[in-house]
Amino acid sequence: MIRYCILCGSVVSFSVPAGDNLPRHVCPNCGHIHYENPRLVVGCIAEHDGAILLCRRAIEPRLGFWTLPAGFMENGETTADAARRETMEEAGARVIIDAPFAMISLAHINQVHLFYRGRLASPEYSVGEESLEVAMFKPEEVPWEQLSFRSVALCLERYLNDRQQGIYNFHESQLAPP
Amino acid sequence: MIRYCILCGSVVSFSVPAGDNLPRHVCPNCGHIHYENPRLVVGCIAEHDGAILLCRRAIEPRLGFWTLPAGFMENGETTADAARRETMEEAGARVIIDAPFAMISLAHINQVHLFYRGRLASPEYSVGEESLEVAMFKPEEVPWEQLSFRSVALCLERYLNDRQQGIYNFHESQLAPP
Repeated sequence: MIRYCILCGSVVSFSVPAGDNLPRHVCPNCGHIHYENPRLVVGCIAEHDGAILLCRRAIEPRLGFWTLPAGFMENGETTADAARRETMEEAGARVIIDAPFAMISLAHINQVHLFYRGRLASPEYSVGEESLEVAMFKPEEVPWEQLSFRSVALCLERYLNDRQQGIYNFHESQLAPP
Repeated sequence: MIRYCILCGSVVSFSVPAGDNLPRHVCPNCGHIHYENPRLVVGCIAEHDGAILLCRRAIEPRLGFWTLPAGFMENGETTADAARRETMEEAGARVIIDAPFAMISLAHINQVHLFYRGRLASPEYSVGEESLEVAMFKPEEVPWEQLSFRSVALCLERYLNDRQQGIYNFHESQLAPP
């Protein structure tokens, strides 16, 4: 996918740099190596009064399906910052982060999904630009058949299970291609 | 830092794309948006017979200082894969991963450091290309003054503390600029 050097605009080659063991897009002119690495998607389970905040996606992929507020972590923020920001952007809600809850590797799409658990600072939320609808769901109301992503379903399952047990663990997992 | 489009080689602009709220390097010719996101550095505390595996760095930054085996996560792998690979590459050691142990955000350098804890599959290790030396350290032998990175020191401190308490937790933290 990388054809031109970001620094000098030369056509890059795809070769193993000295001291490396994987091929990279390397610039034959200025020597810049274009590393590509997995991205962190960070989100949050925000609870209030026994119900969980979900957003119905207004954007692809999975437009119209329900999700936990989550998105790509940005440069210059911590993982917890990212969870709070996404919850505000997608659901207009201020969340108090309690702890990291789940980390799921999706090697086939070069992503790591990280979910925190927390509580709404107040029972206020609104529909963000990337959402069609935002609502609170009691455990028995979760729209399992209309969830956007497998990582979201996995996270919610573990969360409701832990909640029932009365103890929250940190869950590490991985998802292979469907 | 990004001057040219990776897809078509045009000079990019730095502007806020439609529907976004942060400026990105956008190609005025083909429309490609060059997102930049934090990178995951994944490593491992590998224990054997009460001692911990450390590597003395043969590369900058912090050449000559001691570190836990760790490095940038690669596309196509899980976080646990990355921890195993780095332990093999830097210390020639096969590690059995037990659990995620610490996750440290370094917002000022756009990194998240993730450390697992585990055990050597056998008491065998060797000096990898990026290491000057590899050795096992008992808790009282850890070269605190010669550790490479603050995240490594933080992780080792928490680990030895948890080990003494007899219970391992998952530690989330952040480090501001020194």
